[in-house]
Amino acid sequence: MAERGDGSWGRPVVPASGRLRPLGLGEVRLEPGFWGDRQRLGGEVIVEHCRDWMTRLGWIGNFRAAAEGGPSAGREFADSEVYKLLEGLAWESGSRSLQPTARGGREAPERAFTELSEEVAVAQEPDGYLNTRFGWHGRQARYRDLEWGHELYCFGHLIQAAVARLRTAGEDPLVAVARRAADHVCEEFGEDGRAGICGHPEIEPALAELYRATGNERYLEQAGLFVERRGHGLLRAGSLGAAYNQDDLPVRQARVLRGHAVRALYLASGAVDVAVETGDSELLEAVAEQWRNTVAARTYLTGGMGSRHTGESFGDDFELPPDRAYAETCAGVAAVMLCWRLLLATGEARYADAIERTFYNVVAASPALDGHAFFYANPLQQRSPAAPDGGDAESPHAAGGMRSRWFAVSCCPNNLSRTLTSLAAYVASANDQGVQLHQLTACTVRTTLPDGRPVGLRVTTGYPWTGTVTVRVEESGGGPWRIALRVPSWAQGAALVHDGQRRPVGPAGVTVGGAEGPAGYAVVEAPWRPGDELRLELPLRPRWTRPDPRIDAVRGCVAAERGPLVYCAESVGQDPSLRLDALAVDTSAPPADKGRDDQLGGAVWLRSSARPLRLPESGWPYAPDQDGIASEAAPLALIPYHLWANRGPAAMRVWLPELP
Amino acid sequence: MAERGDGSWGRPVVPASGRLRPLGLGEVRLEPGFWGDRQRLGGEVIVEHCRDWMTRLGWIGNFRAAAEGGPSAGREFADSEVYKLLEGLAWESGSRSLQPTARGGREAPERAFTELSEEVAVAQEPDGYLNTRFGWHGRQARYRDLEWGHELYCFGHLIQAAVARLRTAGEDPLVAVARRAADHVCEEFGEDGRAGICGHPEIEPALAELYRATGNERYLEQAGLFVERRGHGLLRAGSLGAAYNQDDLPVRQARVLRGHAVRALYLASGAVDVAVETGDSELLEAVAEQWRNTVAARTYLTGGMGSRHTGESFGDDFELPPDRAYAETCAGVAAVMLCWRLLLATGEARYADAIERTFYNVVAASPALDGHAFFYANPLQQRSPAAPDGGDAESPHAAGGMRSRWFAVSCCPNNLSRTLTSLAAYVASANDQGVQLHQLTACTVRTTLPDGRPVGLRVTTGYPWTGTVTVRVEESGGGPWRIALRVPSWAQGAALVHDGQRRPVGPAGVTVGGAEGPAGYAVVEAPWRPGDELRLELPLRPRWTRPDPRIDAVRGCVAAERGPLVYCAESVGQDPSLRLDALAVDTSAPPADKGRDDQLGGAVWLRSSARPLRLPESGWPYAPDQDGIASEAAPLALIPYHLWANRGPAAMRVWLPELP
Repeated sequence: MAERGDGSWGRPVVPASGRLRPLGLGEVRLEPGFWGDRQRLGGEVIVEHCRDWMTRLGWIGNFRAAAEGGPSAGREFADSEVYKLLEGLAWESGSRSLQPTARGGREAPERAFTELSEEVAVAQEPDGYLNTRFGWHGRQARYRDLEWGHELYCFGHLIQAAVARLRTAGEDPLVAVARRAADHVCEEFGEDGRAGICGHPEIEPALAELYRATGNERYLEQAGLFVERRGHGLLRAGSLGAAYNQDDLPVRQARVLRGHAVRALYLASGAVDVAVETGDSELLEAVAEQWRNTVAARTYLTGGMGSRHTGESFGDDFELPPDRAYAETCAGVAAVMLCWRLLLATGEARYADAIERTFYNVVAASPALDGHAFFYANPLQQRSPAAPDGGDAESPHAAGGMRSRWFAVSCCPNNLSRTLTSLAAYVASANDQGVQLHQLTACTVRTTLPDGRPVGLRVTTGYPWTGTVTVRVEESGGGPWRIALRVPSWAQGAALVHDGQRRPVGPAGVTVGGAEGPAGYAVVEAPWRPGDELRLELPLRPRWTRPDPRIDAVRGCVAAERGPLVYCAESVGQDPSLRLDALAVDTSAPPADKGRDDQLGGAVWLRSSARPLRLPESGWPYAPDQDGIASEAAPLALIPYHLWANRGPAAMRVWLPELP
Repeated sequence: MAERGDGSWGRPVVPASGRLRPLGLGEVRLEPGFWGDRQRLGGEVIVEHCRDWMTRLGWIGNFRAAAEGGPSAGREFADSEVYKLLEGLAWESGSRSLQPTARGGREAPERAFTELSEEVAVAQEPDGYLNTRFGWHGRQARYRDLEWGHELYCFGHLIQAAVARLRTAGEDPLVAVARRAADHVCEEFGEDGRAGICGHPEIEPALAELYRATGNERYLEQAGLFVERRGHGLLRAGSLGAAYNQDDLPVRQARVLRGHAVRALYLASGAVDVAVETGDSELLEAVAEQWRNTVAARTYLTGGMGSRHTGESFGDDFELPPDRAYAETCAGVAAVMLCWRLLLATGEARYADAIERTFYNVVAASPALDGHAFFYANPLQQRSPAAPDGGDAESPHAAGGMRSRWFAVSCCPNNLSRTLTSLAAYVASANDQGVQLHQLTACTVRTTLPDGRPVGLRVTTGYPWTGTVTVRVEESGGGPWRIALRVPSWAQGAALVHDGQRRPVGPAGVTVGGAEGPAGYAVVEAPWRPGDELRLELPLRPRWTRPDPRIDAVRGCVAAERGPLVYCAESVGQDPSLRLDALAVDTSAPPADKGRDDQLGGAVWLRSSARPLRLPESGWPYAPDQDGIASEAAPLALIPYHLWANRGPAAMRVWLPELP
């Protein structure tokens, strides 16, 4: 069994090389706060919510039904939802084995995991193949529809669940099932097998990680084969074109992410894994360039990716409509996966910055405050309030402006299960020089530096609501080592307080003691002693942000931001003179900080001043001149974007027309 | 056989009542000019193009294959494409029976019509049912999938082809086939039959028109049943929702068009037909209101309808993105169908205005100048030039910025066939008072007023390139009567010249002699004699047009218009300092008129002045401030929107950012 102290325990990603070594659930414990609360919501509420729905809908029953010749429920990729939940349960059980939560110890998630594992195992065929929709008597034959069948995609999620289990409990029946499945995939799709790939990437990072978790090189080779095969037209291109599943260009040749956003990001994650394990710097740089170009021209202010409902896909450069943004929750999850891999490989702060933006404004936006309803798409504008009953039933992709309890395609809630339960594993890393804190959230860190020195830190902060982050050393094995705190790129005027001294921190970061630290971090090297403190002060002044002029869809608009949070105006509770579709904000002053408000969980609200627009009434909305601005200003309340639609149906907009 | 002189000859729509009586292909002859050239292109090139492709692809062969148990080609609604072509051939044969074209008399279209009719008849079953995809041995059973099967939709187009035939040649074998099919539909879906409707409306206007053409009231009743049944959830709502096929609300209750644009417009056309024939003013007003609200908030500057690729559908109010505009060619055809019906019913100039806008900027934009390639979607912005080979092959919906020779779903070319061949039938009408010229294009009109007086007019004009429209009386049966010329709503400063007098024409129009004429027309009542002339002078000054501030997607932009034409900037041939994605135009002066240019068929070009934008290079497209305007201005060429992409792949935009 994996030990808490070993280098892979409680980690979703364990690269053999790279600039940073990730710290896992055994080393980082989230305390109450923005991140800790979300991890708890995931582990205590969302996993149960997903299990209830999938039990009720028969998706869990599909495994037994397949073996027994019964009918199957849900879509052709429903198995993967059960696997995503299994991954979440594995992380949750692991976390609770270290520290029980208010809801108890590991018994509940452990029992759920075991029961689900037993169900899944029933449907595995003797050669390792496992899918409730294909292969069985009366079902479609295996691998006849690699474009849409999702068979390898489902294996990928099974394997990721097994990796989570290996890294929190060790070998067990589900791991055995996944190994047999992985062996089957290597047999079937190896060098001498079918030269096929899956329409939906996912098997690539899964196999790479299973290699990391087991040492079996065959899995890495297979992951590499799948990565290299793509882009050569092996998949029949449908009406969405070959770019839809990234089969238009080899991964090494592509310069930007395109097609279905989740597919593109999973593939890129797998390519980074393969590149890191094989020392393939060309492949790594190809993906890094794709990411840079995607962030520069195909990413929403929220970090959301995917501009089109059609194909759930990236659009062209600068095609970023706020109202029809897809910005799927799963694409947010996948973007975090990719950035975490690139961060560990390169140590560059930009990837941690992107994780922060995406986490606060996409991933955290999906679940309702109570964890029982979810956004699938995360648009930046909702023109009209949803119908009041919009969120109560199983729903197609939830573009209606209200969170839904479930979806016919329910990847998003299950992806939240596995992501939120493992949240602590995306906070910090270590290397020879010390510990890096990439995300600023209340937590304790206990780990051992590569040279064997035990170190312990306690991070205290009300971030993102307040801007002070205090790091207190709780354990230090002697001698100097470094504490690196990421300074977010938006933080103009930040300061580092250490040893009674206050130092300004510029965009490049600052280093105190020792050699120059990495850009974007405040780094202090010292012979730390328990009780020593370090303080980062981030000015959380609300600010207006303007779009690149090529983003046509939001020309002439501004968005309010404060710290890492994007804000929005919601129609609920606004001044009655203001309609969200016909106002302009006064940007002569920055938005005012209204402090924390009891509504919406104690979030900080902002306030600006806006004026209603006089609207034309001709019946034809195009004219030589359009009417102007009404003279009376009114206050406009702004709330964090991730909290919208928690007070009932509402119109909403992030981008606000600016008064000339 | 129908006679040229009777009240229905050569007319797609023949209402029993209404303010205006339409003039048909026998009464209006288009002369060379914008409309006449398009009718010729449709009748001489596009019908042949469609016949060639459908022969090659086996869509025509489907009828024999169904009867003989062979495989079927194309999509489940391919039969309807053959019927649309048959309708086009019927109109073309009718027109040529009156006047041969350079390509000969009616022999060629007549032979093609007869041959195709014989093919179609082979697949009719004894009870009248006719569909190559359903019903036959080995095919799906009939009427099991009303949502997607398109069976009644196909019947609708068969019937419209038969109506065209009845009104140009009289009873014949295709008419007999269509009557049997219509009888079958009434039997199957009548009061006592299946309470079903088709996922795609079309049977409604078809049955109403077959009633008009045959006098069989059963067809009108059935059309009424289909109209009234919709909106009660008879169709299973898929992931696109019940609004997709207008089954969310009864026609009488809806306030705006929504869902799939072509479906919505066909249904509305059928509802107007039923309302007019039954004297149901409530139903007529319901549709008129839907149209007004749609034009006020869901219509592009071009007249295009349909904001979303997903569901080929209308978006929310003011959701009108230029780049992802769907604005399907068929929706343009359908919008003309609806407006023509509303114009005949009400006599209101706004409907003729809308036909003009939609014809010049959507319908005319679809075919390439040579008539061998087509736009399916008609976006108002193309961000990057299409791949050079984008137009050569059968293509999915052709959103790639180049016209395609054919589509997997090829409704648009075939809809152009039937619309362009009948174009002369949308130009003029008559009533007790005289003749109304709704479209200003070179033509001759010969008809008989209801009181029996023969009248004849010749319209001479270079419109829309030049602004003078001269109407010369060629025949007049004595006594006073009225000539009414529509004055387009954009025409500020128009003048009417008659009898040596020049009169300004305001937005309300002008009346000379007799009682007040209808708003929006220049009307002269006189005891006309052959040789008398009337002249309308329309100032075609280029103008800038601005959007309603609620149209977020084009905030801060202007579009150039001249007369009825929307203009655009195309990347081909522009000053090298200008990139379409990063410029702002100087609107301190109106666009300059550059006169007619030999390129692009002698169209009038415009020229404006634009400045390149300085672009940020930070790698993240959001910042507190964005860079500004470069100082050097350069000339920006503007061409009529309908002509774009005729000079190879190009970026294009209608809406141009405006210099502050």
